Amino acid sequence: MNKITSFCIAFIISLICSQPVYAQLKNGSRAPSNVPNKEYPYIHSDGKVTFRVKAPLAKSVQVIGLDSKNPFGKEPTNLIRGEDGLWIVTIPINPGFHYYQLIIDGTPVNDPASKTYFGWGKATSGLEVPHPKVDFYNPKVATHGEVRQRWYHSQVTGKLRRVLVYTPPNYNANIKRRYPVLYLQHGAGESEWAWTQQGKANFILDNLINTGQAIPMIVVMDNGYATKPGVKLPPDSWKNEAFPLVVIKDLIPLIDSQYRTIAHRNSRAIAGLSMGGGQALEVGLNNLDKFSWVGGFSSLLKDFNIDTSYGGVFQNPTLANLKLKLFWLGCGAQDNFYSNHQAIHKQLEKIGIRHIWFPTKGGHEWLVWRGYLREFASILFRD
Amino acid sequence: MNKITSFCIAFIISLICSQPVYAQLKNGSRAPSNVPNKEYPYIHSDGKVTFRVKAPLAKSVQVIGLDSKNPFGKEPTNLIRGEDGLWIVTIPINPGFHYYQLIIDGTPVNDPASKTYFGWGKATSGLEVPHPKVDFYNPKVATHGEVRQRWYHSQVTGKLRRVLVYTPPNYNANIKRRYPVLYLQHGAGESEWAWTQQGKANFILDNLINTGQAIPMIVVMDNGYATKPGVKLPPDSWKNEAFPLVVIKDLIPLIDSQYRTIAHRNSRAIAGLSMGGGQALEVGLNNLDKFSWVGGFSSLLKDFNIDTSYGGVFQNPTLANLKLKLFWLGCGAQDNFYSNHQAIHKQLEKIGIRHIWFPTKGGHEWLVWRGYLREFASILFRD
Repeated sequence: MNKITSFCIAFIISLICSQPVYAQLKNGSRAPSNVPNKEYPYIHSDGKVTFRVKAPLAKSVQVIGLDSKNPFGKEPTNLIRGEDGLWIVTIPINPGFHYYQLIIDGTPVNDPASKTYFGWGKATSGLEVPHPKVDFYNPKVATHGEVRQRWYHSQVTGKLRRVLVYTPPNYNANIKRRYPVLYLQHGAGESEWAWTQQGKANFILDNLINTGQAIPMIVVMDNGYATKPGVKLPPDSWKNEAFPLVVIKDLIPLIDSQYRTIAHRNSRAIAGLSMGGGQALEVGLNNLDKFSWVGGFSSLLKDFNIDTSYGGVFQNPTLANLKLKLFWLGCGAQDNFYSNHQAIHKQLEKIGIRHIWFPTKGGHEWLVWRGYLREFASILFRD
Repeated sequence: MNKITSFCIAFIISLICSQPVYAQLKNGSRAPSNVPNKEYPYIHSDGKVTFRVKAPLAKSVQVIGLDSKNPFGKEPTNLIRGEDGLWIVTIPINPGFHYYQLIIDGTPVNDPASKTYFGWGKATSGLEVPHPKVDFYNPKVATHGEVRQRWYHSQVTGKLRRVLVYTPPNYNANIKRRYPVLYLQHGAGESEWAWTQQGKANFILDNLINTGQAIPMIVVMDNGYATKPGVKLPPDSWKNEAFPLVVIKDLIPLIDSQYRTIAHRNSRAIAGLSMGGGQALEVGLNNLDKFSWVGGFSSLLKDFNIDTSYGGVFQNPTLANLKLKLFWLGCGAQDNFYSNHQAIHKQLEKIGIRHIWFPTKGGHEWLVWRGYLREFASILFRD
């Protein structure tokens, strides 16, 4: 794996983050994130995006992106009022998925022409700008896996929860085959829907599996927020302290009983993005009897300590290397978490913890995470 | 079945549509349709609902319901500006699910504190007001079925489509059991998500099946809009003319190959609400070699003609009665479609077409359709 470490450092970066060339979008197209039959937001052949909103009585209409490195610009952009009360503006926006909102007379609202996604702790408009050179996350004409909603009563939280379970193409037909399992977590302010709706994880896996680039696997996506019974949260507060227990006590038994899994640590992985990356490392590295593949995508790892984190697992590099079939860390150079990742990578390298450090271009955003999932999933479960 | 017809005419109406008594909501509660951790909309113990919106710079904020018989009142209700730019109002709203929007300075927008649902052809805020005496659609502490998203490339439309498939509790465990199938369609301006998100169909079926009140079945919920390849729709136009072919050419073969169905007309039903009720009758009655159970909930049946509709199937009542194990029609007395349903019922009765006519209280709304699904599903597939 050490060879892979050095081999992978800059690999595929150019594929994921190359400069867009919009020649393929000849005459432009409606954004894929539009509500059906809505003409705007509209993606032009040069990659610019036109927003149009009907608000005849409004005094001002603006559009603002919500990502940390804002592809819409740091300040809201003013739309111009046209005839019939239609407000319009055209601005350049990077390819990928971006949360955004309109601001009408000073009040942030969602764009009725775009699908809403659960992000920033609420229903938020999303914009998908097609990438002119990258389509590994788009559905192909092929057999698709299913994404199943499953409800369960959590012993840990005492409440009903919903988990989304991706089963790979032909799962229903191959009734004797058993599959390895990846537990995959969303970021702060998102939900169990994020990896399929914002991340297109199911299509990424479909494409990898159908072309032999990934071993067919089940992917389990739960909500990263969880509290123990009796905890009363004030409005707009979010807690996730019970999530690790949910994975161990609720989820793994549920998934292993309901799906044709290979119920063994050698065939069980956990990964996540941002807050979910921190959770993946916490759950995975603290439970190496249950997980042997661990990945963090642009992870929130603010209290990382090489001596004490994760039950001191790194104090014995030989044992850790024996148990960890893969320890994978990725972060984008424009991400606020990048320098922390570099520091952690150097500490791990220094004491001989085998891992893959996968730095790329890009910020704290879904286009980067889709690429990390492709990369991570293509390595998983290969011995 | 004639006995059932007369027996059922007024049955259960009182259960579904009885006057609310809010004693059970002692101190009130957040609406179940709220985004997680949002305090408003808030349901009080007397059944009134408080809306609260932060809009410090707005000159006016209103709330308006979008149902045809508007439980919010016909005119928008003004919210009152309080300290810190919080606008607030408390109004009585009937139990059930209602589409609504805010109007900020004259522009209709969604409430950021409520979940959005696909209705009225776009993402629209939804409000679930708990019913104090009826909970057949709420999840219980029990085994739940799955709701599976499945993507397929339609031979009929030439495009990728998504269908939602409910598999009943213990479907994964009972690997040799085969199940009858109900095809279940949404209304105009809605999507394949409506029956589970707005309608809670999966919990209704869970509860019926877990208590032995319905035969375990698979429920297939697709999008009722479909056009043939090459049809270019102008913005905001909706067409469904290819949907019957999608059911026959795409869906039935897909579902029968991917799920453990009983692939026979005796074990295949179709039903729907409003536009979807019209489609259910069109698809079902024109294809009695494939369906023998047909239901319409508050159906759009504007061109009904007893002699010519559905290929003239009613011209031979003996044959129609032989092939139709169940022909079920329901409509609420406050629904604009009610008088049409009464007229159709009388025509069917006159020529001896065996059917169940199930008139109830209520308008063109989800609480009524949830009740119809419970009633219809509990009769299905019993010989």
